[in-house]
Amino acid sequence: MKIETIRHSLSHILALAVQELYPGVKFGIGPAIENGFYYDFDNLKISEKDLSKIEKKMKKLIKQNLKFEKKIISKTEAKKLFKNQPYKLELISDLKDKTLSIYKVGNFVDLCAGPHIKSTKEINPEAFKLDRIAGAYWRGDESRSMLTRIYGIAFKTEKELREYLKTQQEAEKRDHRILGEKLGIFLQDAEVGTGLPLWLPKGTILRKIIENYLYQELSLAGYQWVVTPHIGKLDLWKTSGHWDLYRENMYSPIEIEGEKYLLKPMNCPFHVKIYKSKIRSYKDLPIKLAEFGTVYRYERSGTLHGLTRVRGFTQDDAHLWCTPEQLTGEVEKLLKQGLKILKTFGFKEFKIYLSTRPEKYAGTLKSWQKATNCLKYVLKKLKLDYQIDPGGGVFYGPKIDIKIKDSLGREWQCTTIQVDFNLPERFDINFINKKGKKERPFMIHRALIGSLERFIGVLIEHYGGALPLWLSPVQIWVIPVGSAHRKYAQEIAEKLKTEGFRVEAKIEAETVSKKIREGEIQKIPYLLVAGDKEIKQKATRVRSRNKDLGIMKLNKLLEKLKKEIKQKK
Amino acid sequence: MKIETIRHSLSHILALAVQELYPGVKFGIGPAIENGFYYDFDNLKISEKDLSKIEKKMKKLIKQNLKFEKKIISKTEAKKLFKNQPYKLELISDLKDKTLSIYKVGNFVDLCAGPHIKSTKEINPEAFKLDRIAGAYWRGDESRSMLTRIYGIAFKTEKELREYLKTQQEAEKRDHRILGEKLGIFLQDAEVGTGLPLWLPKGTILRKIIENYLYQELSLAGYQWVVTPHIGKLDLWKTSGHWDLYRENMYSPIEIEGEKYLLKPMNCPFHVKIYKSKIRSYKDLPIKLAEFGTVYRYERSGTLHGLTRVRGFTQDDAHLWCTPEQLTGEVEKLLKQGLKILKTFGFKEFKIYLSTRPEKYAGTLKSWQKATNCLKYVLKKLKLDYQIDPGGGVFYGPKIDIKIKDSLGREWQCTTIQVDFNLPERFDINFINKKGKKERPFMIHRALIGSLERFIGVLIEHYGGALPLWLSPVQIWVIPVGSAHRKYAQEIAEKLKTEGFRVEAKIEAETVSKKIREGEIQKIPYLLVAGDKEIKQKATRVRSRNKDLGIMKLNKLLEKLKKEIKQKK
Repeated sequence: MKIETIRHSLSHILALAVQELYPGVKFGIGPAIENGFYYDFDNLKISEKDLSKIEKKMKKLIKQNLKFEKKIISKTEAKKLFKNQPYKLELISDLKDKTLSIYKVGNFVDLCAGPHIKSTKEINPEAFKLDRIAGAYWRGDESRSMLTRIYGIAFKTEKELREYLKTQQEAEKRDHRILGEKLGIFLQDAEVGTGLPLWLPKGTILRKIIENYLYQELSLAGYQWVVTPHIGKLDLWKTSGHWDLYRENMYSPIEIEGEKYLLKPMNCPFHVKIYKSKIRSYKDLPIKLAEFGTVYRYERSGTLHGLTRVRGFTQDDAHLWCTPEQLTGEVEKLLKQGLKILKTFGFKEFKIYLSTRPEKYAGTLKSWQKATNCLKYVLKKLKLDYQIDPGGGVFYGPKIDIKIKDSLGREWQCTTIQVDFNLPERFDINFINKKGKKERPFMIHRALIGSLERFIGVLIEHYGGALPLWLSPVQIWVIPVGSAHRKYAQEIAEKLKTEGFRVEAKIEAETVSKKIREGEIQKIPYLLVAGDKEIKQKATRVRSRNKDLGIMKLNKLLEKLKKEIKQKK
Repeated sequence: MKIETIRHSLSHILALAVQELYPGVKFGIGPAIENGFYYDFDNLKISEKDLSKIEKKMKKLIKQNLKFEKKIISKTEAKKLFKNQPYKLELISDLKDKTLSIYKVGNFVDLCAGPHIKSTKEINPEAFKLDRIAGAYWRGDESRSMLTRIYGIAFKTEKELREYLKTQQEAEKRDHRILGEKLGIFLQDAEVGTGLPLWLPKGTILRKIIENYLYQELSLAGYQWVVTPHIGKLDLWKTSGHWDLYRENMYSPIEIEGEKYLLKPMNCPFHVKIYKSKIRSYKDLPIKLAEFGTVYRYERSGTLHGLTRVRGFTQDDAHLWCTPEQLTGEVEKLLKQGLKILKTFGFKEFKIYLSTRPEKYAGTLKSWQKATNCLKYVLKKLKLDYQIDPGGGVFYGPKIDIKIKDSLGREWQCTTIQVDFNLPERFDINFINKKGKKERPFMIHRALIGSLERFIGVLIEHYGGALPLWLSPVQIWVIPVGSAHRKYAQEIAEKLKTEGFRVEAKIEAETVSKKIREGEIQKIPYLLVAGDKEIKQKATRVRSRNKDLGIMKLNKLLEKLKKEIKQKK
C-alpha cells in the first residue's frame, strides 16, 4: 500500500471522528500531503488542546476495521446526498462529468476520486499523530470563508513517525531564524520589508569569511571579478529575454526620465556586456567573470522564510565562455570545485541531478545533445552518482545541480552548472577562432554555494549555530577568574588578535560561570579561562563546545588553533 | 573691474562681431559663465572652423575702443527697437517693469541689465578665446528652437588664459572616462543605462584594494560592519523623513503585493534599525556601524559624468552614536582619520568647510549650538584652517566637509562629517544612561572618501592613470627578451605572485619594445625585462614609469617593492 493512500484515508477517518464529536460540522476538502494529511472544516470551534480527543477517537475508529466503500453516483444524486454540505455542493457544481465517485467509511461519506485503503486494518494506529490547527481560506481565496484546518502526520510504522518527530524537534531547535537573531547574524524588520534581511555585525563577518574564501579559490582558478549595478534598462531585459520569459519573478519597473528600469533578477546580461566590451580571441578563452551580485526576485510574502527564502539575495555568481573543445574540461573543473567547496564547509553527502531538454527550448537539437553528452561524460568520468531529471532543464540549456544533505538529512540546492544557448544568440556573442572567423562560444552560468543568504541559513541549521572555528564570527572569549586576572586576559586576547583571531576579552564584572554559560549560548568555539594558576604557567584553561580540554600552554593552544584554521575546521 | 563684467561685455562683443559677419542673425541671450561667456544665436549656420574668423573680428572691434552705452527705455520703445528679434521680444513681454535698460556697443544693441565695462579698452584682446559651438534649446526647453551657442573663455591676463588652457589640455589627457576605459577600469553601456557604470576586472581590483584598506583602518578604530538591502518600504522612508524632504533625489516606487518600496538613496534608516535592534547602554557607546552601501539617487541625465556623477554609487558610509560627552572626541577622531586616509591616497592639499545652521532646521537651538561649538573646537584644537559656510548646514545638523585639491588644482568633495538631530527624534533612538534613564544619543553620519565611484574617478585624473604601486590593479609585467627567456620570466612572475604582488608574465610573441610601449600605455608601475645577462645575474632590468632603473638583483627588487607597498606609494 502506498503511504499517500494511507494518508489520504486518514484524512477521511479524521473527518469521520470530527463528524461524530462535533455534529453540524461542514466539510471542505482533505488531501494527503508531504509527511501527512489535513482536512478543512467549517462551523468547528476547537483549539489545539482538543486534538488529543480527536486523535483518540480516530484510533478507536481505526481499530474497528471499518471498510472504505466506493460508489459511482449521478450529479443529481450527489446534490441530494450533500444537501447540507455547501462546500461539497460547490465542488459538485464545478465538476464536468455527469457521474462522480463517493467513498463511505463508517457514517462519513465524502466526494472523492480515491484511491483508498480497503479497511482501516491497513492503518497502524500508532504511526500517525494530529499535529496542529491552522486557518485556511476556502479554495485559498481570501474573499471566501476562513475554515479550520487540522493537520496530521502519518507514516507506515511507529518508528518512522518517532524519527520524523525527533527530526522536527531538532530542526526547531536549529531554526536559523531564531538562532540567527540570538547569535547576532541577521535581523528582519517589518518597516524595512519582509524578505529583506539586515545583516548584523557578526553576520557580516560570516559573509565576509565566505566571500574571502571563495574569492581566493576562484581567483586561483582564473576567475576575474566584476561589479555591476542593481538596476538596468528595460531594453536590456528585453534583449536578454528576461522580460518575456522571467517577468513574473521581476519587480515592477522604476521610471527615470520616461524610461523604464528594472531591479536585476540575475547578473547575466551585465556580465555579457562586459564580455562583449572587447573583441575576444580563442587565445583569451575561457573567460570567467565572477561577482557577488545581489539580485531581487519576486516571491509571494507567504513563501518567505528567514534567510532561506528571501526577496533580495547575493549570488556567488559566475559566467564562463569557452570554445566547444574546452566545454568538457571546464564542466569537470566546475563540478570538482563545487564539491570541494561544499565539503570545505562541512557537508559530506550530496545528491546530483542532471536535467535534460524540456519541450520548449532555445538552441539547436545538436548543441543540446553535445552539451548533455558532455555533462554526462564528466559525471561518469568523475564517478559521481547522479539522477536524471528528464525534461527538467531550463529552456536555455541542460544543467547539473548538486544538493547537499544537512545534518538532519534535509536536502538543499546549492551548486548549479547551466549551459546557456539563449544569451549567446540574443546578444550575438562571439570569439575569433583559429581561422580568424567569428564563432559562438559555449556559455555557462554557475553558482557554487547558491546564495550567501540561503547558504548561511543552511549552515546555521546544519551546525545548530555551533559553526566551525574558521567560520565563527567570534572565535574566542578570554575570561579572567577575578579582577586581578583581567590584565592577563587582555594580554592573551591581544596576542591572539595579532595572530589574526577574532577574540574578545570578557572583563566585565560578572561571574565566570555566567560568562561561560553565555559563551556557550553564543556558541563561541573556545572559552579560555585564566586565573592565578594559569598565569604562573603561561597557560589558560580551555573549554571548547561544552568540553573541558584542561590547562594548555599558550604556545600549544596557538598551534592547535592555527592548525584548525588551516584545516578549515 | 570684475572679471565677470569683462566676460559679460565680451559676450556683447561676440554678438556684435556675429551681427557684422552674418547679417540676419537672431539673438538669444549672452551671459558671463565660469571661466568665460557664451551667446546664443538663431539663423546662424557656422562650424567650429569659423570661430577663428569671428575671434579675429572681435579683436579688431576691441581695439577700436568702443564705448558701452546704457539707456533706459519704455517697454513700447523696446518692442519697436527689437521688432526683428523674436527672442528679445519674448523676453520683453515677460518683463514686469514698465521700463528696461539696453546697452549699445558699436552697432549692436542688447536688452541687458548690465553692468558692463565703460569701453573695450578695458579688455585685453589676448586674454580671451572662442572655445566651441554647441546646440542649446531656447530657454532650455526641448519643445523650443535649437539655437547655436558660441562659448568663449576669458581672463584678465594672457598668462591666466594660457594657464587655464594648459590645465584644460592636461585635464583632457587625464579624463577618467577615456583613461578608465583604456585601462580596463569601467564601462558605460547605453542599453544598461547612463550613470550606471559596470566595473571591469581591473576596476574591481582597485575597488577591492580601497575597500580592504578602509575595512582594516576602520575595524581597528572600533567600527562594526553591516550589510543592508537596496530597497526598503515606503513606510521606512516616511518615518525617516526622506519621503518628505528628499523625494526629488529618489526614484519612483516599486509595487510589491500592493505595497510601495523605494531604492535607497541613503543607508541611514537601515543602520538606525540595527542600532535599535538592541537596548544600548552608555557602556556600549560609541557604536559605529559601517557599510560599503550602494545607493541610488536621481540625477538628470544631462548632468551625469563618467564616475564622478552617477546614478548608483557605493558610499564608504558609517553612522556613529555617542553620548554628549563623547561627541568632541569622536569628531576629533573622524577628522584625523579622514585627513590620514586622504593623505594615504596621495592628496596633499585640503580645504575644510564648517557649515552652520540654515533657516529651516530640526533639533533645538541649544543642541545646534553645542554641536557647532564642538566642531569649531576640534578644528581649532587640530590647528586646521577652515572656512565657515554660514547657514550651509543640512537641515538636520551642522557639518564639516573636507575637499581635496587634485594635481590640477581642482577641488573635490570627499570627507563629510554631519551631526544629525533629525533621525534620533524620528526613530526615537535611545541609550540607557548612568542613571538608568533613557537618553538621546548624538548621531553622526560620515563618509571619508565619499563614494568609491567618484573617488576612483578623481584618483585616475589626479594620477593621470599612473596609480601608485599599492593601488595599481596590475603592478608588474615581466617581459622576456626572447623565447629562450620565457621560463625565467614566468619564474620571476610566480615568485612575485607568491609574495602577494599582482604580476603578469608577458610571454606572447611580440617584440620587447612593443610590450614596453604597451606597458607604458597601460600605466603598469614596473616593467621587468629579462634576457641572458639578467638570468646569469639572477636579476632583471627594471623600468618604472618611463625611467630605466638599470639591472637589479631579484632580492633587491623585492625589497624595494615591499617597501613601497608598506609605505603605500
